[in-house]
Amino acid sequence: MSETTRYAVFGAGSWATAIVKMLCENLDEVGWYMRSAYIKDHLNKEQHNPSYLSSVEFQSDQLKLSNEINEIAEWADILIFAIPSAFMDSELKKLKVDIGQKTIVSAVKGIIPESGLLVGEHFHDIYNIPFENIAVIAGPCHAEEVALERLSYLTISCADTNKAQAIANNLTSHYIKTKISDDIIGVEYAVMLKNIYAIAAGIAHGLGYGDNFQSVLMSNAIREMKRFIKKMHKMKRNINNSAYLGDLLVTGYSTFSRNRMFGNMIGKGYTVKSAMMEMNMVAEGYYATKSAKLLNDKNTNKTSLPIINAVYAILYENKNPKKVFKKLTDHLD
Amino acid sequence: MSETTRYAVFGAGSWATAIVKMLCENLDEVGWYMRSAYIKDHLNKEQHNPSYLSSVEFQSDQLKLSNEINEIAEWADILIFAIPSAFMDSELKKLKVDIGQKTIVSAVKGIIPESGLLVGEHFHDIYNIPFENIAVIAGPCHAEEVALERLSYLTISCADTNKAQAIANNLTSHYIKTKISDDIIGVEYAVMLKNIYAIAAGIAHGLGYGDNFQSVLMSNAIREMKRFIKKMHKMKRNINNSAYLGDLLVTGYSTFSRNRMFGNMIGKGYTVKSAMMEMNMVAEGYYATKSAKLLNDKNTNKTSLPIINAVYAILYENKNPKKVFKKLTDHLD
Repeated sequence: MSETTRYAVFGAGSWATAIVKMLCENLDEVGWYMRSAYIKDHLNKEQHNPSYLSSVEFQSDQLKLSNEINEIAEWADILIFAIPSAFMDSELKKLKVDIGQKTIVSAVKGIIPESGLLVGEHFHDIYNIPFENIAVIAGPCHAEEVALERLSYLTISCADTNKAQAIANNLTSHYIKTKISDDIIGVEYAVMLKNIYAIAAGIAHGLGYGDNFQSVLMSNAIREMKRFIKKMHKMKRNINNSAYLGDLLVTGYSTFSRNRMFGNMIGKGYTVKSAMMEMNMVAEGYYATKSAKLLNDKNTNKTSLPIINAVYAILYENKNPKKVFKKLTDHLD
Repeated sequence: MSETTRYAVFGAGSWATAIVKMLCENLDEVGWYMRSAYIKDHLNKEQHNPSYLSSVEFQSDQLKLSNEINEIAEWADILIFAIPSAFMDSELKKLKVDIGQKTIVSAVKGIIPESGLLVGEHFHDIYNIPFENIAVIAGPCHAEEVALERLSYLTISCADTNKAQAIANNLTSHYIKTKISDDIIGVEYAVMLKNIYAIAAGIAHGLGYGDNFQSVLMSNAIREMKRFIKKMHKMKRNINNSAYLGDLLVTGYSTFSRNRMFGNMIGKGYTVKSAMMEMNMVAEGYYATKSAKLLNDKNTNKTSLPIINAVYAILYENKNPKKVFKKLTDHLD
């Protein structure tokens, strides 16, 4: 990739805004697509995103803003998607530009409900992007701490590790350290699964379980995650690396995680529907739970997923959270 | 062990009190030695420990209380020690009873400063207790949550797994689940090392690092712990089991952990001495740091311990915490 490689971010949420900030530390110009004309105009006039990470100040001349996804997709070489998975499909359907030669980077924390695919797989299967042109950005990283320039570590995964390194270099700064990995599938699954475990942590908290149980739950969750990912894509990986265990912990221990909050409401007695309405959004882990269950059920040689099965039973089979968790506690150790 | 096997707990802190409570769920009589005559008298009169977990009510006829260590040591078959490691040696020196035929259980969270030995090793080397008569109780378990009868999991380790199971059975109740293990040395090291990592987490917090960094620190800590324990005692173990990873998490994420609090003060600029004076006690991790460093230095084939070395440099070499941690961040990933 030459020095003039153009980077663009798609989405205007907190994670998208954080990634634009990181890129602005390194690049003269960053493309930024957002659906909302209001956010675009506000960024132009006030140099900050009015809805997310509003303390982060941008320089207008560094940003190439647009509400037209094709304009930014055409302009950029590296397309970084940070749109909630539930909106990915409808946004991508607006694309008329051929993105077959571009590099696609997923910063989406989940899977695409319409296709049931990981974001990387979705681009590969539906847009014919070769896997060596697909990368994933993983944390552990709360966007809010990027805004505060608190030291954070990212893992950039790509089958082509040179490409991973080039992207990593453009995200690195005095508050961002990066490492690269070639385990794109494992990292994508980890990002997806951690949201289910965050829901489980929330349910446990809502039901009145304490810190002792939370640590046992996380200890079991990382072992379950390892089994699941190994079954899906066997390769040498250390599940305790930051992109897997670190990301699980920052989400599972965060009281700000939407997935944990969603779980907490379920644990406290909200129905799934009322918890969703109350939050005015669908937590990524809600879809992830169904997908993980289906993926495992499809396998002839299933692996034991007591935590995911418990969350599935509560979210999709209307089972009593208290009873389900009581039973779950017998399967943990 | 017959049904009339007698259990006694030594110590009157919160962990000792929690263990007595667990045993009282299963046994008609529990021996309980404590140094303080005040606590003993209060327990007799008011049925609770005035200083720790005072909400826990005992039945006087279930407790055999004494301020005389030899009385309880003679009476009991299973001696459970839950005395801070800094006081173990002076308490044990009072022993005149031959404990060579007894089963010794360590619930001490650290190593004995005077001998530099793990508690199990200390009993083995100095009191000639065979290893099959030595067991260890490990969490993850805050005593405070035992008081509230919140579900907690314990791991009982002993080379003789029948013995481990018998002890486990007497600790199990509707709020305590137990598992057994034969990795007594690995579990003891884990209990010791987690306190160093809790100090590191506290220092990081005191210096202003956030949740993203904390998760990276814990992810690196468990990998460092695995390397360390493997070097000291190689055997098949899953470092992500509750007794290792779970215990690291419950301590490293707890704002009540004394080790984390101690680290936090150091990070905020207190000297080691003033932090100790302010806390009116010495955090277990303070001794553990020195021992871990010495143990690794003794090895001809050292392993890389960036976190332990950083804490050591701050606590024992008077190095600047901010600078040491800045350098440490380059060694984490």
